[in-house]
Amino acid sequence: MPSNHLVQYSVVSALMDGVAETGITLSELLTHGDHGLGTFRHMVGEMIILDGTIYDMKPDGSVVALDKDACAEQTAPFAMITDFKPTVTASKQIPNKDSFTETLSQLLPATNNHYLVYRIEGIFKSVTVRTVGGQQSPGESLAELGKRQASHTFHSIKGTIIGFRSPAFMQGISVAGDHLHFLAATRDSGGHVLALEGDGDLDVSAARIAAVNLQLPTDDEAYNQAKLVRDDEGITAVEG
Amino acid sequence: MPSNHLVQYSVVSALMDGVAETGITLSELLTHGDHGLGTFRHMVGEMIILDGTIYDMKPDGSVVALDKDACAEQTAPFAMITDFKPTVTASKQIPNKDSFTETLSQLLPATNNHYLVYRIEGIFKSVTVRTVGGQQSPGESLAELGKRQASHTFHSIKGTIIGFRSPAFMQGISVAGDHLHFLAATRDSGGHVLALEGDGDLDVSAARIAAVNLQLPTDDEAYNQAKLVRDDEGITAVEG
Repeated sequence: MPSNHLVQYSVVSALMDGVAETGITLSELLTHGDHGLGTFRHMVGEMIILDGTIYDMKPDGSVVALDKDACAEQTAPFAMITDFKPTVTASKQIPNKDSFTETLSQLLPATNNHYLVYRIEGIFKSVTVRTVGGQQSPGESLAELGKRQASHTFHSIKGTIIGFRSPAFMQGISVAGDHLHFLAATRDSGGHVLALEGDGDLDVSAARIAAVNLQLPTDDEAYNQAKLVRDDEGITAVEG
Repeated sequence: MPSNHLVQYSVVSALMDGVAETGITLSELLTHGDHGLGTFRHMVGEMIILDGTIYDMKPDGSVVALDKDACAEQTAPFAMITDFKPTVTASKQIPNKDSFTETLSQLLPATNNHYLVYRIEGIFKSVTVRTVGGQQSPGESLAELGKRQASHTFHSIKGTIIGFRSPAFMQGISVAGDHLHFLAATRDSGGHVLALEGDGDLDVSAARIAAVNLQLPTDDEAYNQAKLVRDDEGITAVEG
């Protein structure tokens, strides 16, 4: 896959409908890039892909870097990945998540209706993350899981954020707006970012996505039968 | 591009918003496949791509096969193309467009939430087509153009239909449901199919789309500023 092409497996609406029994193997996913995010089978934990390694950020707060054998065995019901080659880099103050939205739009102008990929690196004053705990029954929806999510706030923590911005008109296929996952530099904590506060300058690198390659689940009757109705409020509640 | 990968340039919502000033060059489009459909700059006429040739089905009813020079010069603001390798072929009675929907679902089961590509070939009792007449002012929406569309009914006509089925959840990005363009065997008439009646058996070939590659317009301020709000009724009225 050429640089900054997004490969997305399945659609967020399928997670909302609880389709998480099977998916793309992690080793196949890694053939499409080196930076990304997603979730695991039965939506247990949060996935971040950093410099070609997939990290499993588990609901109990632990983090595991998945080796070759684990990647060959495990599947992701949803993931976004790209071969990330930043086209802009900058040192920026990022007081909070909303201010980053504005900062990114300035760094990559004329991208209202485009996907973007980015990485933020440095010391954060605080990062609040959640990790979803996984389905308790087959087909349980992401919205239900969201009600049980564990959230943690880390203070004065060094780490990396990988994020994607998806255009508003792709809501339901992707998560419209910014979607960020965090991993600590010590590689022992992280999750889906709910809030953040920067501490001094942070290193931001970003690129516009050149094309989106969408792969839809096959041989998956749960996906075949899913309604996949766009649920704006539900997605914002659980992925915002 | 591997077989049966769909490459789509821009989104239908952008046409609805009148974004049709520029686009992908036809010669670049042809690098992605041999079967497809779309429209031309300013939405003048209907495009069908058959066996690697792009035909311009003009509003006055004439049809032009575009040569290499024309493909190098002209652009498409919206197009769908694939390197079509049928996985099923069958001879089928197709009394009308709705019955074809059912026939295709039987030929390719368990594809409720997938894109499909297909070709129908033979003698039709009748085919009713429209060709849009193009924007009369910059940024005029496809819905406005639809109000002025010319429709023609051909009787006892031999020809080929190229169609794509897009899943319901992709409405606005593509045209949800079946979207068919027709070209007569004499290559002198055709258009966007509004209705059809088969006459005896027709040859149907089809395949599930393996992956969707979406390319979004760059360096296009009209696209950047477009609202791209999904307009179900508008799309059904003009593309149904």
